[in-house]
Amino acid sequence: MRILILNVNTTASMTQAIGDSARQAASPGTEIIELTPDFGADSCEGNFESYLAAIAVMDKVVRYTEPYDAVIQAGYGEHGREGLQELLEVPVVDITEAAASTAQFLGHKYSVVTTLDRTVPLIEDRLKLAGLTDRLASVRASGLGVLELESDPQRAVAAIVEQSRIAVEQDKAEVICLGCGGMAELEEQVREATGVPIVDGVRAAVTIAESLVRMGLTTSKVRTYAPPRPKTVTGWPLTQAANAL
Amino acid sequence: MRILILNVNTTASMTQAIGDSARQAASPGTEIIELTPDFGADSCEGNFESYLAAIAVMDKVVRYTEPYDAVIQAGYGEHGREGLQELLEVPVVDITEAAASTAQFLGHKYSVVTTLDRTVPLIEDRLKLAGLTDRLASVRASGLGVLELESDPQRAVAAIVEQSRIAVEQDKAEVICLGCGGMAELEEQVREATGVPIVDGVRAAVTIAESLVRMGLTTSKVRTYAPPRPKTVTGWPLTQAANAL
Amino acid sequence: MRILILNVNTTASMTQAIGDSARQAASPGTEIIELTPDFGADSCEGNFESYLAAIAVMDKVVRYTEPYDAVIQAGYGEHGREGLQELLEVPVVDITEAAASTAQFLGHKYSVVTTLDRTVPLIEDRLKLAGLTDRLASVRASGLGVLELESDPQRAVAAIVEQSRIAVEQDKAEVICLGCGGMAELEEQVREATGVPIVDGVRAAVTIAESLVRMGLTTSKVRTYAPPRPKTVTGWPLTQAANAL
Amino acid sequence: MRILILNVNTTASMTQAIGDSARQAASPGTEIIELTPDFGADSCEGNFESYLAAIAVMDKVVRYTEPYDAVIQAGYGEHGREGLQELLEVPVVDITEAAASTAQFLGHKYSVVTTLDRTVPLIEDRLKLAGLTDRLASVRASGLGVLELESDPQRAVAAIVEQSRIAVEQDKAEVICLGCGGMAELEEQVREATGVPIVDGVRAAVTIAESLVRMGLTTSKVRTYAPPRPKTVTGWPLTQAANAL
Amino acid sequence: MRILILNVNTTASMTQAIGDSARQAASPGTEIIELTPDFGADSCEGNFESYLAAIAVMDKVVRYTEPYDAVIQAGYGEHGREGLQELLEVPVVDITEAAASTAQFLGHKYSVVTTLDRTVPLIEDRLKLAGLTDRLASVRASGLGVLELESDPQRAVAAIVEQSRIAVEQDKAEVICLGCGGMAELEEQVREATGVPIVDGVRAAVTIAESLVRMGLTTSKVRTYAPPRPKTVTGWPLTQAANAL
Amino acid sequence: MRILILNVNTTASMTQAIGDSARQAASPGTEIIELTPDFGADSCEGNFESYLAAIAVMDKVVRYTEPYDAVIQAGYGEHGREGLQELLEVPVVDITEAAASTAQFLGHKYSVVTTLDRTVPLIEDRLKLAGLTDRLASVRASGLGVLELESDPQRAVAAIVEQSRIAVEQDKAEVICLGCGGMAELEEQVREATGVPIVDGVRAAVTIAESLVRMGLTTSKVRTYAPPRPKTVTGWPLTQAANAL
Repeated sequence: MRILILNVNTTASMTQAIGDSARQAASPGTEIIELTPDFGADSCEGNFESYLAAIAVMDKVVRYTEPYDAVIQAGYGEHGREGLQELLEVPVVDITEAAASTAQFLGHKYSVVTTLDRTVPLIEDRLKLAGLTDRLASVRASGLGVLELESDPQRAVAAIVEQSRIAVEQDKAEVICLGCGGMAELEEQVREATGVPIVDGVRAAVTIAESLVRMGLTTSKVRTYAPPRPKTVTGWPLTQAANAL
Repeated sequence: MRILILNVNTTASMTQAIGDSARQAASPGTEIIELTPDFGADSCEGNFESYLAAIAVMDKVVRYTEPYDAVIQAGYGEHGREGLQELLEVPVVDITEAAASTAQFLGHKYSVVTTLDRTVPLIEDRLKLAGLTDRLASVRASGLGVLELESDPQRAVAAIVEQSRIAVEQDKAEVICLGCGGMAELEEQVREATGVPIVDGVRAAVTIAESLVRMGLTTSKVRTYAPPRPKTVTGWPLTQAANAL
Repeated sequence: MRILILNVNTTASMTQAIGDSARQAASPGTEIIELTPDFGADSCEGNFESYLAAIAVMDKVVRYTEPYDAVIQAGYGEHGREGLQELLEVPVVDITEAAASTAQFLGHKYSVVTTLDRTVPLIEDRLKLAGLTDRLASVRASGLGVLELESDPQRAVAAIVEQSRIAVEQDKAEVICLGCGGMAELEEQVREATGVPIVDGVRAAVTIAESLVRMGLTTSKVRTYAPPRPKTVTGWPLTQAANAL
Repeated sequence: MRILILNVNTTASMTQAIGDSARQAASPGTEIIELTPDFGADSCEGNFESYLAAIAVMDKVVRYTEPYDAVIQAGYGEHGREGLQELLEVPVVDITEAAASTAQFLGHKYSVVTTLDRTVPLIEDRLKLAGLTDRLASVRASGLGVLELESDPQRAVAAIVEQSRIAVEQDKAEVICLGCGGMAELEEQVREATGVPIVDGVRAAVTIAESLVRMGLTTSKVRTYAPPRPKTVTGWPLTQAANAL
Repeated sequence: MRILILNVNTTASMTQAIGDSARQAASPGTEIIELTPDFGADSCEGNFESYLAAIAVMDKVVRYTEPYDAVIQAGYGEHGREGLQELLEVPVVDITEAAASTAQFLGHKYSVVTTLDRTVPLIEDRLKLAGLTDRLASVRASGLGVLELESDPQRAVAAIVEQSRIAVEQDKAEVICLGCGGMAELEEQVREATGVPIVDGVRAAVTIAESLVRMGLTTSKVRTYAPPRPKTVTGWPLTQAANAL
Repeated sequence: MRILILNVNTTASMTQAIGDSARQAASPGTEIIELTPDFGADSCEGNFESYLAAIAVMDKVVRYTEPYDAVIQAGYGEHGREGLQELLEVPVVDITEAAASTAQFLGHKYSVVTTLDRTVPLIEDRLKLAGLTDRLASVRASGLGVLELESDPQRAVAAIVEQSRIAVEQDKAEVICLGCGGMAELEEQVREATGVPIVDGVRAAVTIAESLVRMGLTTSKVRTYAPPRPKTVTGWPLTQAANAL
């Protein structure tokens, strides 16, 4: 089977890391196609960037012409999953929800540890819409941005490990979802520091997408995620309509 | 003061109707500027169209060069308000939230009556994020689309009146928010049929925007709605970057 | 238009301050009539005093013989608003709910900072009934009573500023509602110390009352707030029935 | 032990019926003193009447000069219990909460069946404040007023039996709390028609009050229900201050 | 009347202490029969032990051949109450729920203070199923096991007193339920240290069971707690079927 | 990998059907071992039977001596999963939770359709503990028992199809979880009648168990699901201790 995995920002190295991580989790016979949007921010750390990413991801997917079996949106706490579900026939999995759903099989409560304080409400809101907050112990931020994970990894890792430890000891989390990607060593260090299972959203999403495909299940089309009604849509897809705008 | 009010779809006649409605509610001295996005669907009845509208609205607002004091997003149950709040210094008011907040001053429970069944979950989700569902009796749909309000108004009105009546009698709503716009007679007929106050989102939003401006209140910038961090954003605003895409 | 604003305690200087604050927020052409109840406590800091105030406020309003367009109950976290809504045809606005509704347009979460610890549950309960707790970060108390705000303002302000700061930093509030009135400088100092918008309940209530009147909206009379059924009520209004008791 | 039980309306025959019902549930050695407020409505069917009753009940209790061990407020869905808890050292039990607490020991979900539709929100709100709504299946109204229970008992009983049956069959209630008093035969008929346990609030409250006294437990005085702070209260108790008003 | 009270563990000295405590709370004429399960753990501090206790308690009760009027399950946060309700005609009272229900009559919020951190989620989950968490301030653990209460009582008491104090001061509890039994002095010391009422689950359960019996109320049999359908059950009761397994 | 899947009742033909269904969903290389408890009821339709099943399942698993990688508890709405999580090192997946988690990836709201009305509260309670009720539209019962699914399949299927249709049309479910197993044709007929995706708990659980194993994730052992503390457990495992009881 072929799974498209969409980075939400325009940083190609992060797309590559996401693709690599997805391939590690994939079953034999699953092909992972990682895609980078053609417009948007080089990192998503707020609502404007996230809304722009939502459209850029849809824009990218609808122009992808090869067949595929499922789509993963690989941004933590980002907008847009519902739009993809309307546009596509295949299952769509968001990594924020995939991580939380998986965490709930492993412990009584879970926490999400992310980068910036300002993205905490975005993650909380996406989990609220997904109906996954009853067992959410906390969403905690390390205070360091997405790109600092790459520029000063040691300090970034230390801050995330510290917040994970507090989540387990004070907030009573029993599982940690890492709400930021791209660092193999991060997961290992958080696990050692806390003694709890660490869930990576990308890997969780790959296994869920594979499972849905294997069971022949796809998005319900009876109401919320029915295909868009036929109507005039000006300037879509944006990248193809560019000259007309 | 000057208030920008943004239609979320590309149908100019609806923008005009929204502007007229807003002007009716405005205080003396308030100038209403109604704007139509430059791309998107001619009516928003689902997530894809709503996400596209979110970006089209932001795209329109950031290119508006005259001074203004507040912005109203005039789509019922639509995405995007949080992005505007990040991008702008002035207060931003969404009509779905304005209507619900207003309704809560008038009765113990309120209902929203809208057009299509498929938009019910969008409205429910926006009200959930806004923290306005505790006193929500129901969101009900007439089963007729946005554009049918214009093409077969008599049948559309009858269907909306009927759902409003059920909301009051069965769901125990004491106030009705009309989740669809553009018809002066609709409001009067629903009021007569149900005997309850009818809240129009556009008018409610105008009074709230005016009030915030008069009190000197604007969006908090300490966390969720802080301005976007400085970073590379490719292809923004979309209409200006068209050639580059 | 004419708006009655009711102090809930019997301290005339506080009625005056409330009236002055209301007039600052009022539009040109709005007349503010501030009223003091004829019985009750000189400050409301608990349930007994608040229940007594509820009746004293109703007793005052029903004996007011001039025409008016709206009524504001100017007590933070007090009982009684529902009774006024039954007795009156005009809209009734409670300042606790007005402040919270307004705050929700300005930030993702809000806190209320009040005087005494013992009034925190009253405020929480009123917000719970109003359906405004989903985005409530916290209700915090400075530990100083209502009258100490007047007797030792410097210490009172410092305590309220400190709790507001904690609300923003620890509880993640992005807006502060001041649950205590009468000090112009307080608002400014809290804003400077926290960097977030400060909502004053009296002013918020005035703008909401004006808006409802302008839109021609008033309390729904179909169920909860229908006029009292005709029946024998002994000793009402209390001040007129005094001799009979 | 001696228990005061307070009717919330001024109808002496209902006070008598409440007292009789309480005595049936009381243990040997428990003396029941039933009291009628000196002012207020002859039946409580809305917020104004309920707020007035709250103060009239407090006014009656604070002037009662004999010793007693507990107080029961015998109105369904009425305001005021928190005020009594502040004013008194002995335990205070509200019949709405007593019935619901008792019902929860008997079935998975419970319903309340009451008289008028307009009192449904009052009962819902009191149960919400009491934290007793998670297992509440419904509050249903027969559509007949309190006094009609006495004037046309047959029709009143039939209407209440019908709503109880619907509560069990449609709302999945497994226990019924009767939110209206004074008819011995009513309880039996509802039980026969539904096959579920019927909880009477007055009797439940008597057993709870006795239990609290026997265990030496009384209202916590550390915060919410601390005695009122010393201050000037004008016109209290109202019946004694009558001449001064 | 005769009430069976079931210890959930196999430690006879704890059964004795539970029986003694129950007898202190019982009315004259109430006979308390304390029973120890015939299999299971010598203390219940987790789910496996609790599930085993659930079955051991049912196994014990169904083999008890004398008549009785009510059953109390005397384990804090344990599984099984619903099973007893199906098997028996008489009322069944769980001490966790009895304590919480009682606490809610005494203060605005309550906390439970228990022994081990690992039992906190069990207690939280039982209270969630019972619909008693809205006014739950916290469940706190002293960090000491059930049997340490007997082996090093001084240290155990100090730890529980400390957590109770934090519950009142930080979590704003106004009542404490002690989620661990068997020590008369513990209750007194916690009361002195905190100034709030202390509720003992065993005593609360005895008064509730007595009250239900006196009112002639018993478990609803229309749905959830209907008797088991006639079917083949292998190996039940376990202790009688032992040879067959 | 090897996955144990535990039937919760003692009917061998149902164990076989569960095993067959699991094998259909399993990846190549996954071995499914289906197990039947050695005691308990021949179908689980209530709390007593479910608690007994919980212990019988644990009793069976702890005596299984071959190595395995994950355990699935294949009963809908049954007790016991938490106990297995304490006793085992490998991941444990409950089919009720697996189905609901999977359904949430496919539609905005989901319903569960089961057999008997009396099991509805059990399923609701398990989903409540699992934190999976926010998007639950309803749990509906066909009114026919587990064994009738085998004895009169045509009537049973018709009743389940009807309830599924109502769930979609009235309760607004977009996905159906079948809360009863063993019939291949049932799933197909419900899908045809409703047009929505149908989730089978056994198959969903197999894919989730496989995914957890592949990602190297297992139950968190830091608190709730830590191994039982060392202590004296009388009569365990029950089947081995039979002679001692």
